[in-house]
Amino acid sequence: MTAKRVGVIGSGQLGRMMALAGTPLDIEFVFYDEATESPSARLGETIQPSTSNSLESFLASVDVVTYESENTDADLVARINKSKPVYPGENSLRRSQHRLVEKNTFRDLGIKTANFLRVTTKDELIKATKELGLPIVLKTTTMGYDGKGQAVVKTDSDIDSAWEALKGNELIAEAFVNFSRELSIIAVRDIQGNTRTYPLAENDHSDGILRVSQVPVTGLSQAKQKEAESYITTLLDHLGHVGVITLELFDTDSGLIANEMAPRVHNSGHWTIEGTASSQFENHVRAICGMPLGSTQARQSNAAMINIIGKHGDREKVLSIPNAFLHTYSKTERKNRKIGHINLIADSKDEIENAITELTEFINECG
Amino acid sequence: MTAKRVGVIGSGQLGRMMALAGTPLDIEFVFYDEATESPSARLGETIQPSTSNSLESFLASVDVVTYESENTDADLVARINKSKPVYPGENSLRRSQHRLVEKNTFRDLGIKTANFLRVTTKDELIKATKELGLPIVLKTTTMGYDGKGQAVVKTDSDIDSAWEALKGNELIAEAFVNFSRELSIIAVRDIQGNTRTYPLAENDHSDGILRVSQVPVTGLSQAKQKEAESYITTLLDHLGHVGVITLELFDTDSGLIANEMAPRVHNSGHWTIEGTASSQFENHVRAICGMPLGSTQARQSNAAMINIIGKHGDREKVLSIPNAFLHTYSKTERKNRKIGHINLIADSKDEIENAITELTEFINECG
Repeated sequence: MTAKRVGVIGSGQLGRMMALAGTPLDIEFVFYDEATESPSARLGETIQPSTSNSLESFLASVDVVTYESENTDADLVARINKSKPVYPGENSLRRSQHRLVEKNTFRDLGIKTANFLRVTTKDELIKATKELGLPIVLKTTTMGYDGKGQAVVKTDSDIDSAWEALKGNELIAEAFVNFSRELSIIAVRDIQGNTRTYPLAENDHSDGILRVSQVPVTGLSQAKQKEAESYITTLLDHLGHVGVITLELFDTDSGLIANEMAPRVHNSGHWTIEGTASSQFENHVRAICGMPLGSTQARQSNAAMINIIGKHGDREKVLSIPNAFLHTYSKTERKNRKIGHINLIADSKDEIENAITELTEFINECG
Repeated sequence: MTAKRVGVIGSGQLGRMMALAGTPLDIEFVFYDEATESPSARLGETIQPSTSNSLESFLASVDVVTYESENTDADLVARINKSKPVYPGENSLRRSQHRLVEKNTFRDLGIKTANFLRVTTKDELIKATKELGLPIVLKTTTMGYDGKGQAVVKTDSDIDSAWEALKGNELIAEAFVNFSRELSIIAVRDIQGNTRTYPLAENDHSDGILRVSQVPVTGLSQAKQKEAESYITTLLDHLGHVGVITLELFDTDSGLIANEMAPRVHNSGHWTIEGTASSQFENHVRAICGMPLGSTQARQSNAAMINIIGKHGDREKVLSIPNAFLHTYSKTERKNRKIGHINLIADSKDEIENAITELTEFINECG
């Protein structure tokens, strides 16, 4: 049985790109979000939670529900799941929302992580600095992203300030990982349990925001490629996950170290729109609607994604590059806001590098 | 100056695919059509001509207007053009709507056509059979498509019945063309007069309906490729055309013979969605909105398009072929109705042929 109407909690660019991928497959989209002038707005009806009987109306208008964010209310998801299937399921969502549960899941599955300890008192923090060795990163176990809800303890003298900044929350102390670069792997699992993995991407961040992703990862050993695929497939099966999942990884001399997972399509996978036969958006829709999964193989040897952040920049320039693909989100300019991205697809690394050079302003200036 | 809001006269699959291509470029679409449950319906507002002040509302909500069909009311286009630009312009539209004007345009530009004569009396018809030589095809100069408004005169004994069937209309008599296959070329011209041409497609029709298009055309000489490109570029410039245009051609021993033109995106160009960097839909939107044209080069060596006609068929099978791309139009099943298409993109002719074989039911049974 194939679902035909997808309800999306949220109406941002991820919902927009799901709808653009799903519409040619005869899937209709309804969005559940307070914002109405949003990136998804022109691709389906938006039902505002604040209106009367909104949840009933939303659920009556869809066959299956998904969401855009790992910060989606898990209780709402549990409630919805009593009347309509929600993918990815509550289990994937709750484990993604709690750093300690997430790390324990990784550890239980043999997925390497940084050493970590639970911290709820200052004594436990001091003990963690000794057991894990300095420096450590102290994080709240829930919420917090892009550097918020975090403190770095480099020396004993940082302990007091870190504790003052974060006390009152359940915390996780993580040993510092000496990594050479940040990678991610994206995979998808359908209702029957079939899985497909996308090629790994190398991700460049600056000021806590993803700037550029590139595929393939230069000089990645076959062993590490297999390690990443094994990690994410194990994770998908263990969670009983349906839909797309993303695993962020650190590349180190002693192998890949899992950083965190996201139970959703991911910014580092936007290159798949033109880079593969079935993009992460299309495969997410296929999976949650009960359709067969599509090919996750790269259509050409090299790809890159450049985020458009803060300002739209020189669109004419982007449109004039033959192998550049512009994806705007119909969002207004605002500092540090992701308002679009540019995909570059080519048959050589050189072509990609040349295009990135031409588009340097998008990486350095647009923010 | 870049237009941001496109008004489309019509709301069928061509408008749908324009909107799917234009949305990532931050273009918004409004449709002007009586039908509201149409293929474009979920991709923008539909304004119904029968409602009060509909044309004013439509024009107030858009920056530029285009249309889906060569049967669009040219007087309406002329009227609209007084307040908003309409692309392609009235000149392209009117010449496409009148077979005699169209053929004279071809002849004036040195574009080879079948020999033809205007016929308004039975005496002129008899004269035409002698001057052109039998067989001839007798057609109404306006309207009529897919074999309607046509009669073939094979022998003198067919003259009476052909005349009875079509008399009262202005007619054109065309010499029969002995062609080996039907081809088409699609090109685009922007407001500044820059042009780009897509690779030629070979088109298989049956019962007057396009079934399969394939690219590249097997064994096409460089001379014929150049001839086609020269024809369509000459035509674009002569018409002052803005947007996409299609020229249907017969392949014969003595060169390419122009059959007819369409001032629009074309079914034989649907393969460009995944087959080129900028599809015919994207380039049409780019051209009419004043954006730079995108690349029309094939991304991989081989492509094909199979129309889904009458019945949806086995979608699971389509979705299971790694290099097949399903494009539905959200239309209900009806005999001989185009309700979707399948694009196949590959690195060899063999791969394409194998996929076509797997999908034979779509060519032979779905109708």
